[in-house]
Formats: sequence, structure tokens, C-alpha cells
Amino acid sequence: MGITPARGQYRKLAELLREAIERGDYPRGSALPSEERLSEQYSLSRPVVNRALAILRANGLVRVERGRGTFVNDIPRINRNAVERQKRIARETGRGAFDAELTQMGLTPRSEPFHVGPAPIPAPAAEILGVETDTEVFARRRHMFANDVPVQLASSYVPNDLAERADLTGDTGAGGLYSRLADIGHGPERFRERVTVRPANEDEVAFLRGELDQPVYEVIRTAFDGEGRPVEVNILIMPVHQWSLTYEWDAE
Amino acid sequence: MGITPARGQYRKLAELLREAIERGDYPRGSALPSEERLSEQYSLSRPVVNRALAILRANGLVRVERGRGTFVNDIPRINRNAVERQKRIARETGRGAFDAELTQMGLTPRSEPFHVGPAPIPAPAAEILGVETDTEVFARRRHMFANDVPVQLASSYVPNDLAERADLTGDTGAGGLYSRLADIGHGPERFRERVTVRPANEDEVAFLRGELDQPVYEVIRTAFDGEGRPVEVNILIMPVHQWSLTYEWDAE
Repeated sequence: MGITPARGQYRKLAELLREAIERGDYPRGSALPSEERLSEQYSLSRPVVNRALAILRANGLVRVERGRGTFVNDIPRINRNAVERQKRIARETGRGAFDAELTQMGLTPRSEPFHVGPAPIPAPAAEILGVETDTEVFARRRHMFANDVPVQLASSYVPNDLAERADLTGDTGAGGLYSRLADIGHGPERFRERVTVRPANEDEVAFLRGELDQPVYEVIRTAFDGEGRPVEVNILIMPVHQWSLTYEWDAE
Repeated sequence: MGITPARGQYRKLAELLREAIERGDYPRGSALPSEERLSEQYSLSRPVVNRALAILRANGLVRVERGRGTFVNDIPRINRNAVERQKRIARETGRGAFDAELTQMGLTPRSEPFHVGPAPIPAPAAEILGVETDTEVFARRRHMFANDVPVQLASSYVPNDLAERADLTGDTGAGGLYSRLADIGHGPERFRERVTVRPANEDEVAFLRGELDQPVYEVIRTAFDGEGRPVEVNILIMPVHQWSLTYEWDAE
């Protein structure tokens, strides 16, 4: 390749591979050639190939499946702008930010509720709602897909008294859950998201079709009403390679 | 342990280990017994022990060092509340949010600048500032420690014209960088943070004393002045086990 410094070499290779993926030489969902093959093909050392692949991983273009190799991601990385999402929800009469966001990227969103009704509340949500862990609380749990790729597991918990008054058991209609909470005077006025990253557990991995222990974002999202009461805790599990999270705010 | 369902078993074990760590039976920084030893000690199967350790990892109490075992983290997980940080900076005359945050947790903050002056700007920051990648731009790069544990690598880039006018080459004095930018009429009025997670590269791993490919947050933080011009891009690299990130905002 004629570029001497190693830094230049792996960056250049990452760029060539990115172009090849975008041209469709390595189609979305397919396996990349092994490091050994790439090393021969581009006459570069294995460490250079390895660092180039690390850059592609960092940019969400490929993922490593342990023991199977490096695969081109089926869909590009989704950027979730939490604040903009809320503004859009407020403006629209539609069903939610996830749909708008994916549609904008040319992806097809799909949401599959797999549980609506009382469910034992996990510790972090219980703490926020001020109930004992594993108390039965009104829950809505959903699997979210982009072009049939599993991208998010969302588990929303609402205090039982509010869930009953807002009648959340059926279709929540225009504006979704937040509009129904607003109808009974407990609409969200402030949001907080706490982001951690941890290894996926067995249930999560089964849905995400990934590897056990792959890193996932755990976003604990709390909606507060005008009095500062938490009216919903939503726990979002997302594979880290598939998402970036953007937040914006004014100074002061 | 007399608890039959596996779910109860691994949770209970996680709780016992957490208590043991907090009591000092397993001191901060030390290695935990192997899964095999723990399995014998508590008369539980290896998968139960494995899942209990996954809970402790998820909570930032322990970390796995590949090939070496499971270690008790030297310091507790730091929660970074981006919005509150900014409010505090605005109120205080001190040197920054990092110090205030750690002091509040009873940890000793330390910041070691290792580069102040022109440096080639990496791609994501270049794109935001509207310059070519690797252009020489005024940079301040710092290693940040909590109780001597490396916790953050911060690389701040400021457009050259602003850096010159604000005279950022020496000690930036009370209120730090943002106050000096405010002095010349370009104080930050809006912030954006974009969070991704990727494997650490060699330089980052050398500083963080971790394992190659350990997941790190890459937070790209942009400060905008009143006209919407980006006046600083700060790239923060943080080991995921060591931090949680909190954001808050009002609806609408």
C-alpha cells in the first residue's frame, strides 16, 4: 500500500474496507474475510488488520461474533437523540419516537409487546418508584426491531394507581402512554436517563441473537410529573454496537 | 443455602458477596476466589456462581481481567450527571466539575495534563469544528484519576482563532477554559454529548491499566456559543465499569 507509518496503514485499510462495505463488496449481514485472508490480500501485518477492524467496530460497521468471525452489521448504527425524541412526541399525534427515528433513517420499525399487565418489578425500577423489589407493578414489555433486526428490549413500569386510573391495559391510542398519563393530570414534565453498560444476560442475549456477555446499554429512563413524582420507569436494553445516544441541554 | 429456584440462588449469592466486599472480607483491589472455589465454598453450581458474578460486574463492584480472574474494583462506580455538572461549574469559581463530583463521593481527584498546544485533531472532532482531520488544532489532553485509579482520558480541542484570543496556553485560571472563552464573548451556552461504546485502543489501555478491547465510553462533548458555533470539542474516554452517565431535561 506504500504508506510507511503503521498509524497510516491501519487507518487507510479501515477506510478501504468501509468503502468496500458501502459499495456492497461485503454485503450487510455477511462475514468479512478472516484476519489472515485480509492480511494476505492487502499485504499488511496481522496487527495492522486487527487495528483496522477495531476502527470499523468502533464505528458500528461490523461486529465480532466470538468463535465465528467478523460480520458486517445488518443495519447502520442508530443515533438516538433523547431530547429531540421528546419534542417530536409532543408535536406528533403518532405512536412514539422510536418509529419516527427509524423511519427517518430509512429503516422499518416494528414493536412487539410480549407482556402487558402486572409483573415483578426489578430492583432499579423499584427503588425509583418507592416499592419493594419484585412487587407486582403494571408493566409493558416490548421487543423492538429495525428491519427485523432486534435492537431494543423496553420494559416500562407504571405505579399501579396511575395505571388503573389511566386505563393502560389496552391500546393506549393517540400519543401513547404519556398522553394517557396527561389525561389524568400526571403527564411527564421532566425526564432523567441513567446510562450504564453491562454484559447482556441470558434472556437479553436470546432476544438480541448475540453472544452471552456482549456489552449492552442499560438506560434507566424516568418520567416525572409536575409535582416531581416518578410516573414511569422504562428500562431499555440496547446492544452497544447498534446505538449511539445523544443528549443536549442549555448552559446554566 | 436452602433456596431452591436458581434465580433466587444467584441473586442471594450476589448479595452475600456484595456484603462481604463491603465488610472488607474481599478488600478493594484484591482478586476474588475463582469460580471453582466459590462454587465449593457456597455449595452452588458453577453457572449460579457465574451469574452472581455477572450481577456484581453489572453493578460495577468487580471487573474481569481476562486470563487473570475477577477483581474487586478499587473505587465505587462514579455517577456523572452532565447537566448538574454544568450548573455547578456556573456557580463555582473552582476548577471544574470532575473535582467537585469526586470530592462529594469522598474520592481524591487528580488531573494530569500531558499535552497543551497544537495537536492533530481526530476525525469526529474535526467534523464538528469544520476542519480537515489531522489539522493541527489547539488541544489540551489530560489524564484524570480518582484515588490514583485512572478513570478518564480527556482530549479537548478549541478552534485556533479562539484559543489564541482567549490565551489558553498557560493556566486558565478561575472558572477554567469556559470562563476564558466567555471573556472573549464565546462562552458556552449549549452543550451536546454523543455517547458510544467501543473497545479501548492500545494507548487508552496503557493509561487505564486495563485489557485491550475492554469496552470504554467515548463521549463526544461539544460546547456551542450563543450563535451556535462549536467552541470546544472534548473527547472523553472512560472505562464502562467505572462510570454511569446521567442526563436530565424538561419535557417540550
